[in-house]
Amino acid sequence: MIPFVSRASAAEQAIWLKHLSDALPNESILPFSSLTSLQKQDCDIAIVANPDPQDLLSLPALKWVHSVWAGVERIVNEIASPPFAIVRLIDPNLSRTMSEAVLAWTMFLHRDMPKYAQQQAEQSWQPLPMVQAHERRIGVLGLGELGRVSAQRLKDNGFTVAGWSRTPKQLDGVACFYGEDGLLSLLAQSDILVCLLPLTAETDSLLDQMRLSCLPIGASVINFARGAVIDDDALLTLLDNGHLSHAVLDVFRTEPLNTGHPFWQHKSVTVLPHISAPTHPVSASRIVAANIDRFRITNEIPSAVDPIRGY
Amino acid sequence: MIPFVSRASAAEQAIWLKHLSDALPNESILPFSSLTSLQKQDCDIAIVANPDPQDLLSLPALKWVHSVWAGVERIVNEIASPPFAIVRLIDPNLSRTMSEAVLAWTMFLHRDMPKYAQQQAEQSWQPLPMVQAHERRIGVLGLGELGRVSAQRLKDNGFTVAGWSRTPKQLDGVACFYGEDGLLSLLAQSDILVCLLPLTAETDSLLDQMRLSCLPIGASVINFARGAVIDDDALLTLLDNGHLSHAVLDVFRTEPLNTGHPFWQHKSVTVLPHISAPTHPVSASRIVAANIDRFRITNEIPSAVDPIRGY
Ligand SMILES: NC(=O)c1ccc[n+]([C@@H]2O[C@H](COP(=O)([O-])OP(=O)(O)OC[C@H]3O[C@@H](n4cnc5c(N)ncnc54)[C@H](OP(=O)(O)O)[C@@H]3O)[C@@H](O)[C@H]2O)c1
Ligand SMILES: NC(=O)c1ccc[n+]([C@@H]2O[C@H](COP(=O)([O-])OP(=O)(O)OC[C@H]3O[C@@H](n4cnc5c(N)ncnc54)[C@H](OP(=O)(O)O)[C@@H]3O)[C@@H](O)[C@H]2O)c1
Repeated sequence: MIPFVSRASAAEQAIWLKHLSDALPNESILPFSSLTSLQKQDCDIAIVANPDPQDLLSLPALKWVHSVWAGVERIVNEIASPPFAIVRLIDPNLSRTMSEAVLAWTMFLHRDMPKYAQQQAEQSWQPLPMVQAHERRIGVLGLGELGRVSAQRLKDNGFTVAGWSRTPKQLDGVACFYGEDGLLSLLAQSDILVCLLPLTAETDSLLDQMRLSCLPIGASVINFARGAVIDDDALLTLLDNGHLSHAVLDVFRTEPLNTGHPFWQHKSVTVLPHISAPTHPVSASRIVAANIDRFRITNEIPSAVDPIRGY
Repeated sequence: MIPFVSRASAAEQAIWLKHLSDALPNESILPFSSLTSLQKQDCDIAIVANPDPQDLLSLPALKWVHSVWAGVERIVNEIASPPFAIVRLIDPNLSRTMSEAVLAWTMFLHRDMPKYAQQQAEQSWQPLPMVQAHERRIGVLGLGELGRVSAQRLKDNGFTVAGWSRTPKQLDGVACFYGEDGLLSLLAQSDILVCLLPLTAETDSLLDQMRLSCLPIGASVINFARGAVIDDDALLTLLDNGHLSHAVLDVFRTEPLNTGHPFWQHKSVTVLPHISAPTHPVSASRIVAANIDRFRITNEIPSAVDPIRGY
């Protein structure tokens, strides 16, 4: 018996319960709220989607939880020294969807779609200079499950790609940087900056006025990771003073983005409602199921998040 | 001595003269207007970019002309039974640029950018259902130099791709249709239709009310070929009655598109100023040069347009 622990809407929970039950026919997946006190004593695994931390702490036998999402900063922040391991979703299907979003909005910027939309509004017929893909330098922050596949796909589509991570990396055809010095070098040579970093104590407000100012004049930013990685005021300042051309933002400090927030009406900001790479319940449930089935046989907990590191 | 015959602006002609001269150091490339009567007697080759037909007919020794553009419908239409062969530009660099444009604006539609822009204007936070690339059926009209590479690239990016040509074709992973029946089958299964047909007597107004109505409800159209392949009024009718969702138009019956034309302000039309795949003067000049150099050695005219077929 495995509880599904979530603060999501009842409708959303029902979808997850169905797909998880389909993928785990030998387990009974129950909403946390339906557990008896006795059942709570027994749970060694929980499946979670933005869970209430108190619910998890009320399960004394819990060895590990499996998140159905890739980003787990909330649960890491809400439970200091968790007495159980936190396993997050790693889904090749999700990486593919994210790399598609990265490619799509990189093309949006590369092929000047914001400027052509502006010109259309003015009924202005004005071909802009054509930049070849190899002349366009893309910097990818984060070379994990999502960043790696995205960087590769950009490279396969002809762009000049560099990437940045915490530890040194080698990636075919992608110039790899790491550490604080590496970040400044990467920023200085990124016409389009794509953020795919997890939100941690180290990455919170990482893209501040100083670092964003290292981007070349006219550069653009795509944030598909977490809103808090960027300092919003710094971003707006650099868009307004013309240092930056455009920002494509899928994630925000508060979601949904507040009505009246300056991003909504800013002519150089594209606001997306957190849609770059939605978890696909069918494929995610299969991956969660495979991890749980393996644990039932081997008793080995899948590779988990480091709560100190934060990802 | 090879004349450059063009109705383009003096500035544009100067750029071509420079790049052609660089690529053909052993030939002297002259603007047509500077030729003496005696020189005109001698020209066996001309390089053309929207030439005045009278200029070409004043060259009695002319064996062939090389267009620096891929589309040659104007010269074919303006000179009935031309006494010289017409060679058009076939440039892998151009095919790559066109396939990039096809991919970019397919992603624009596939990832719902028009709807998200509309929602942003309304400050509405509304994730739309995510369609996987393989669930998105793309139909490519024309499987020539540009259509073939574009279809392949769409397939490589995970889309379900079909194509249509005059004669039967085989393309890896792309369902190939031909002839009038084939067109109706392809239309019925295209969520996004990409037009890369040359403009000929047969393709003029091909996409009329009847044929556009064969597209599934909610389909979209991308026209990167020539404006006259589509019946504008039929397209507007189907956009207005909701049969079609969106049109991305790079080419028009009159270019620049007239001020006040309904396309400019239509919320379901993206107007682009003929920028999907601009000829690159450096790479085009190299290809023209290679064809001319080969002719000087072998005396064989490169494969030419069939004036009856029109492409
Ligand atoms: N918008 C959406 O729809 C959506 C969907 C899914 C996920 N996301 C977000 O995307 C994030 C990334 O996901 P993922 O699966 O790719 O994560 P991941 O596999 O854990 O990769 C994280 C990458 O970031 C690097 N990194 C972490 N901290 C760093 C630091 N302080 N300095 C430099 N590099 C650092 C890591 O470096 P090392 O390789 O050296 O460890 C690693 O390369 C998630 O955390 C989530 O917030 C968003
Ligand atoms: N917007 C821009 O920036 C831009 C730039 C360059 C070119 N273009 C346009 O793109 C067009 C296509 O260029 P391309 O180099 O790919 O031409 P291409 O190599 O001549 O290929 C033409 C394709 O269209 C097919 N076709 C022609 N007539 C047809 C008909 N009646 N029914 C069905 N299929 C037909 C041909 O079929 P078969 O294979 O059976 O012969 C062939 O597959 C050019 O003519 C030009 O107008 C636009």
